[in-house]
Amino acid sequence: MDQFFDPKTVAIIGASHTPGKIGYEILNNFIKGGYKGELFPVNPDTQPILGRKVYASIKDIGASIDLAVIATPAQTVPDLLQACADKKAKCTVVISGGFSETGAEGAALEERLKEIVRKSKMRLLGPNCIGVYDPYTKVDTLFNASDRMGKPAEGGIGFISQSGSVGITILDILYEERMGLSKFISYENGADIDEADSIEYLGKDQKTRSILVFLEGVHDGRKFLKAASDVSKRKPIIVLKGGKGAAGTKAAASHTASIAGSPRIYSGAFRQAGIIEAADWEQLFDFTKAFMQPTPKGNRIAIITNGGGFGVLAADASEANGLVLPDMPESIRKKLKKIVPPHIILRNPTDLTGGSTDEWYEAALKEVLASDQFDGIILITIFSTPLLSEGIADKIIPFNNPNKPIICCTVGGGYTIRHIRKLEAAGLPVYPTPERAAAAMAALLRYRKMKERR
Amino acid sequence: MDQFFDPKTVAIIGASHTPGKIGYEILNNFIKGGYKGELFPVNPDTQPILGRKVYASIKDIGASIDLAVIATPAQTVPDLLQACADKKAKCTVVISGGFSETGAEGAALEERLKEIVRKSKMRLLGPNCIGVYDPYTKVDTLFNASDRMGKPAEGGIGFISQSGSVGITILDILYEERMGLSKFISYENGADIDEADSIEYLGKDQKTRSILVFLEGVHDGRKFLKAASDVSKRKPIIVLKGGKGAAGTKAAASHTASIAGSPRIYSGAFRQAGIIEAADWEQLFDFTKAFMQPTPKGNRIAIITNGGGFGVLAADASEANGLVLPDMPESIRKKLKKIVPPHIILRNPTDLTGGSTDEWYEAALKEVLASDQFDGIILITIFSTPLLSEGIADKIIPFNNPNKPIICCTVGGGYTIRHIRKLEAAGLPVYPTPERAAAAMAALLRYRKMKERR
Repeated sequence: MDQFFDPKTVAIIGASHTPGKIGYEILNNFIKGGYKGELFPVNPDTQPILGRKVYASIKDIGASIDLAVIATPAQTVPDLLQACADKKAKCTVVISGGFSETGAEGAALEERLKEIVRKSKMRLLGPNCIGVYDPYTKVDTLFNASDRMGKPAEGGIGFISQSGSVGITILDILYEERMGLSKFISYENGADIDEADSIEYLGKDQKTRSILVFLEGVHDGRKFLKAASDVSKRKPIIVLKGGKGAAGTKAAASHTASIAGSPRIYSGAFRQAGIIEAADWEQLFDFTKAFMQPTPKGNRIAIITNGGGFGVLAADASEANGLVLPDMPESIRKKLKKIVPPHIILRNPTDLTGGSTDEWYEAALKEVLASDQFDGIILITIFSTPLLSEGIADKIIPFNNPNKPIICCTVGGGYTIRHIRKLEAAGLPVYPTPERAAAAMAALLRYRKMKERR
Repeated sequence: MDQFFDPKTVAIIGASHTPGKIGYEILNNFIKGGYKGELFPVNPDTQPILGRKVYASIKDIGASIDLAVIATPAQTVPDLLQACADKKAKCTVVISGGFSETGAEGAALEERLKEIVRKSKMRLLGPNCIGVYDPYTKVDTLFNASDRMGKPAEGGIGFISQSGSVGITILDILYEERMGLSKFISYENGADIDEADSIEYLGKDQKTRSILVFLEGVHDGRKFLKAASDVSKRKPIIVLKGGKGAAGTKAAASHTASIAGSPRIYSGAFRQAGIIEAADWEQLFDFTKAFMQPTPKGNRIAIITNGGGFGVLAADASEANGLVLPDMPESIRKKLKKIVPPHIILRNPTDLTGGSTDEWYEAALKEVLASDQFDGIILITIFSTPLLSEGIADKIIPFNNPNKPIICCTVGGGYTIRHIRKLEAAGLPVYPTPERAAAAMAALLRYRKMKERR
């Protein structure tokens, strides 16, 4: 699959002369993104596009082709794919929709694609997909206009999506939140490469440290379980499964021709394979972010806050997520009482109140981190309280450590967002609500427990 | 309670000379915010603060006092409150903490406050609270620095919070999302005015169209049910209850001395009183936003999307929230087939795909709105797809109508956010995930059903 991400030559079949058209935007994204290899637009109308020479057919191209991207109407795809096979293209991405997701006729068309691939050494992604994006090599088959969405910079998150919209939106938010990507793969109908191949590939990929997956169905259960079980021993895999109820199942069938299956069976299989299951789009993103932090040794959490209500909500959510809040040990209380005034209640949550200073936070963090009574910290900071300095984030950051996870929680406008950026740049993930912070901590614990059990 | 929100004279007892201190920031916020009445800082050290004359005691003030704000250590509060009563101040906000939330000693102190209030005509908010904010009159007792958080402009949302941090963060996000506020009330320990009084008051308030409430406990169950049952007939009340599990209950006790009680009993009582219960911080905000829209007549929803995966997730979430997705009627399909190409699958969800144009959206919206087969629309738009124009939001906005709710869903960076702002300014609420959009639609339906039943 390497050739999908680091091709020296790319043919774009169905490159269009019309801005906005999919075949135009793909070529444009390759050029604008700074892809360094050779580009070969293909279109029977050979007038130049974006100043590039256009080829009437892939067979007219003098060079060998590493990656061919096909974005033409469905009926034309089999012949064009055959031409790619004849050209000995190493891999192809079929963007075009109108295959098995549309019914029997489309399914027959998709069978022809499969047969062509079977008879060649070529690998295929799609059809009905948005393909690949690699921030390292700038390979980018996404057709969404680059000036309308952000694309994440280089980093460690590998992202596999059976949906373009889930793919696009998560990529855009990864960019917004300055989180780095290793590789993005969208495979949708999965006529050749499927979720299992993608997981296995990213499992071996040196740049990928965690893998997030949106899927609507599994093409081959046994293959999927094997790949996931193997990879999850080394890297966390976070999966969101779409198509859970009757309505979603029907929608998944007409979206990617997926047979969705019982959500309970899926959840059981995920657990067995060491996968962390996300309940919704938000958790898919949230859990991925959590893995900036180490996993907790156990479920004993300290909540430190300067907002009592946020502390109450975090306590509720911790309990709902299987975490426990041991009482603050007397030894810690004693030490903190020297620093905070008597009306501060040193329980768990420790509510430093809206009158908290930087020093109170530093003292509480220091003691809880040093204590063997706690396995992790949920750190809530309402940054707008008056006695916290503008440098409070810089004072929190040194407590980031490889042994005990710190999950941060705060929400607000511009002033708060500046602090969030600082914390996250330093590897401390920040969640906008106590409930999401607690769920993220629980996801870290779940991964560790699954690893220990296996 | 009017005097809390429209006082002609305000005494700030414990006004401080030190920036950052609570008593300084409160005075500063009144001045900076543009409060038009008279301000009387009170402090034994009578050096001017922020250029204002300072009074050694409230009794030295020549004018009568409509609102007194007390922000001094707990032990000093009873005497200062007595002085306010002697001065015949109409109402007081006690910001100071250190009362019943800290244990028996504090509870005794709080009893003294109650007694003083009982013997006077004065009303009291707090103690241990952040008080009130009114964007119309600029009365603002919040001590968080104004340059660190946004405060919402004038509008129709009444907000009652038993927590400063939940209060502050929701206000900040209301500001960020350009949503208008009528009045904000934080009462915490509720020694005099409690959640029931606040609900009753906002129920009568002309400016308030919906009421959101964060509470950790209810001071007087019968009084609360009576107030809520009455008000919910006229305005939606959305409540988030903190302190659900054992840990949260303990935290609530030491935060606001609340006796949290069984979550199941609370949920039952909420339903009985016509209250819409939010499951978490996010839903408290989300549900409030939903009431920009009319309520649906029934549970039959159409999902229109240009992202298949988002459609699948919305279908799952709709079903999980008790909504149903009827098939697209043949009559609508026929009409749409004249506009969209044959590979577009006109089911429910209607997935217009990443190749959608503005016209396809307009056609689908027009037909579904006109149909008596659907009670509401979940409208998903991935704005970055290439064939949607930059003016797509302006084409969606005219479909906003008072009969059939449209709940929008999209997520992304700058380009997408500009579209979200446009839609929300026109009264179309936008949610970042399909799951949150579906839950918001279900909340609208729940409110209507509760109203119809009563």
